[in-house]
Amino acid sequence: MGQALDLARDSVCCAPNPSVGCIIVKDTYCIGRGSTESYGGNHAEVVAIKDALSKGYVLAGSTIYVTLEPCCHYGKTPPCLKSILDIQPLRVVIAVLDPNPIVSGKSVNQLRLSGIIVDVGVCRDEALWLNIGFFSRMLISRSWVRTKIASSLDGKSSLYNKQSKWITCNNSRKDGHYWRARSGAILTGIGTVIHDNPSLTVRYFPTSKQPIKAIVDDNFVIDPNSNIFDGSRVVIFTAISNKEKENIISDKNGEVVLIDSLNRPDNLMDLNIVMSWFHQNNINEIHVEAGPGLNGRLLITHAIDEFLIYVAPILIGDANSIVKLPIIDNLKESFSFSILESLIIDKDIRLRLYTDSSWDKIKASFI
Amino acid sequence: MGQALDLARDSVCCAPNPSVGCIIVKDTYCIGRGSTESYGGNHAEVVAIKDALSKGYVLAGSTIYVTLEPCCHYGKTPPCLKSILDIQPLRVVIAVLDPNPIVSGKSVNQLRLSGIIVDVGVCRDEALWLNIGFFSRMLISRSWVRTKIASSLDGKSSLYNKQSKWITCNNSRKDGHYWRARSGAILTGIGTVIHDNPSLTVRYFPTSKQPIKAIVDDNFVIDPNSNIFDGSRVVIFTAISNKEKENIISDKNGEVVLIDSLNRPDNLMDLNIVMSWFHQNNINEIHVEAGPGLNGRLLITHAIDEFLIYVAPILIGDANSIVKLPIIDNLKESFSFSILESLIIDKDIRLRLYTDSSWDKIKASFI
Repeated sequence: MGQALDLARDSVCCAPNPSVGCIIVKDTYCIGRGSTESYGGNHAEVVAIKDALSKGYVLAGSTIYVTLEPCCHYGKTPPCLKSILDIQPLRVVIAVLDPNPIVSGKSVNQLRLSGIIVDVGVCRDEALWLNIGFFSRMLISRSWVRTKIASSLDGKSSLYNKQSKWITCNNSRKDGHYWRARSGAILTGIGTVIHDNPSLTVRYFPTSKQPIKAIVDDNFVIDPNSNIFDGSRVVIFTAISNKEKENIISDKNGEVVLIDSLNRPDNLMDLNIVMSWFHQNNINEIHVEAGPGLNGRLLITHAIDEFLIYVAPILIGDANSIVKLPIIDNLKESFSFSILESLIIDKDIRLRLYTDSSWDKIKASFI
Repeated sequence: MGQALDLARDSVCCAPNPSVGCIIVKDTYCIGRGSTESYGGNHAEVVAIKDALSKGYVLAGSTIYVTLEPCCHYGKTPPCLKSILDIQPLRVVIAVLDPNPIVSGKSVNQLRLSGIIVDVGVCRDEALWLNIGFFSRMLISRSWVRTKIASSLDGKSSLYNKQSKWITCNNSRKDGHYWRARSGAILTGIGTVIHDNPSLTVRYFPTSKQPIKAIVDDNFVIDPNSNIFDGSRVVIFTAISNKEKENIISDKNGEVVLIDSLNRPDNLMDLNIVMSWFHQNNINEIHVEAGPGLNGRLLITHAIDEFLIYVAPILIGDANSIVKLPIIDNLKESFSFSILESLIIDKDIRLRLYTDSSWDKIKASFI
C-alpha cells in the first residue's frame, strides 16, 4: 500500500478527480502499477491492469492494492469494478472507501459477492491526506484551504522595506510548486499582487494544467496589466462593481465575482462566501499564498484548514510578521493547530499543521 | 556504535568529564555495556569490562565499541587503556579521538602496537554532538552556549501582559530539563529573575548534581530573596559594585563577578567576558533560558553556538518576540543557522540549530 500511495502522490493533475495509486501483486512479485491519468483518462486500477497484461502476466489469483475504493459507475470512463471482476483477483486491499455516501461500500460488496477477499482501511489516514481536498469537498462540503507561508525562525515574512522577496532556499520554493500543482486554485490578496506582481503559475513541477488564480480585492483596485493576467483563468473577488474594468479584465480571461459587503466591518467581504464559491466550482484544494493581512483575515474567519510553513533558519528581528492578528489578553484566544509533519528540506524546515475541526469531521465519516 | 552512543546519552552527570558509552561484542553477542559514572567514578570502558566479567564472559578476542578514545593517563581513575590491554580484545572501534592534542591518538597507537585492530571515526559527528561542550572547551577554548527558547509559530514567547508562562506542552518542558541536566551552568537575565522568579533547577530528569545558576545583572538590582538563592551555587555578573549586598548574597552561596563596563554602550557588560568566565571555570555547556533582551544581546555578541527551540503549534499575533533585535535593512544582516535536527515532541516541534563558525572549527580539528 505504501508503493500505491507513492504512485498516487506523483499523480496530481487529475483534479477534480482524486489521485489514486494501484499495485498488483502475484506470488510476492509486483506485476502491475498504475496511477490516475489526467482528467478524463484511465483510472489507476485500469492503468495497472493494462501494465500487467502488456507484460504478459496472468492476473487471475493476484492481489490488488488500491488507495481508494474502485468506482462502480460509468463516468468519463467505464467502472473500474468491471475491469477488476474480469481479471478474477484473489484479494483486493483498499485504503479507504469512496467518500460519496451513495456509492460508498457498493464496490466492496460486489467484490465480496463475487468471492473476492476484500480488506478495507489499510493506511486509511495516509490515503485521506493524499486527497484531503477531495474528501473535504465530498464529505463536509468544503474546499480544503492550505495556506503556504515562508517564515524566519522568529515568525517574520519580510523586512519592513520589503527587501527579501525570498527568505527560504531554492528547494523549498520548488517544493511549494508541488503544492500549487495539486491545488485547483491559488488564492492571494491584492496587496501581494501590487507589491510582488507575481504570475502565480506552476513552474517547477510537471503539470498538464494550471490552477485557477484567484484574488481577494475588496476595493477592486487591481491593475489589469498585472502579470497575473497571462491568459489563464483569473477570478477576482470584490465588493465594488466597475463594469468598464470588468470588461477589460474579461478580455484577459478574468472573471469578476461581486460579493456584497455592505454593513460588514470596514466594508470587507465575508471570506466564507469567497470560499463557498470554490466549493461550488468543484475545487478540492485552495492553495493560499498571501501576505500577513489576508492570512490574518482567513484565520479569524476560521477559513484555514492547513498550514504549510517553510521555516528558514534565520533570525530577522523587528520586521513584518507572517500573519497579522489583533493583540490578545489570554492565550486561549490564540489559534492552535495539530502537527501533521516536520521535514527538513535542504536548508529549511517544512511544517504541516492542521486545524482539528475539519479533519475530525472528515475522519468521523469513517467511524 | 549506535548502542554505545545511546548509553552515553543517558549518562549526563559526569561533567566536566565527557559522557562516554561502551559496548563489548563477542561472537555477535553484546556481552558488556557501560557508560561513564559520575565525576570521579569509573569510565565507560571499565564499567563495560566489569559488566562482562561479572557475567563470567572471557573477553579475549572481543570487539570493543567506544564513543571516545580511551584515556592513557592517571587522573581520578587508572587509565582505561591498561584495562583494555589486559583483556586482549581483537579489535577496538572508536568514534572520535581524544580532543586533547597532547594525548590524542596515543592510546590508538599503543593499542595497534599491541597487535589490536583499531578503527577510528565511526559515527564521529554524532559522538562530537554528544559532548559538543567538552570538545568546544578542549579544542576551541570556548564553553558551548545553547540557548533554549519556547516559541509560538509566529515567533512569540509571551503575551504583552506576560500571561502565558508556559506556551509549550508538558513533555517539551520535561525535555528541557534533560538539557539543563547536561549543562554545567544555567544562565538567565535579571528580567527573567524579576518577572518569573524561577528556581532554575533540574527537576524532571534524574541527576546527581545541579548546574551552577548564573545571572546577567548589569545594574546589580537582584533581590537577595529571589527563589534562585536556594543554597546551590549562584553566580551574578554585574558592572556595579555593592559590598553590602555582595555579603548578603555570599551568605546564600552567591558569588558576584564584577565586570567593568565603563565606556561601553549603555554601560552594559561585554558578554564575551561573561562567557570567558565559564570557560575558565571548566564549564562545557552553558544552558541559556532568558528573555528576548538577553537573547538579543547574546546573538549580537556572537556568543550563541546552538539554539534549542520548542515550537508550539499556535499563532499568537502581536506579542513579545523570542528575541529582541534592531531593525535591519538587508537580509544579509540577519542571523543565520544550520539545522541539526527537527523532532516532534508530543504536541510541539523541537528544533536544534547551530552556528557554523564554532562547529566548523571543532570539525576542522579532525581533518
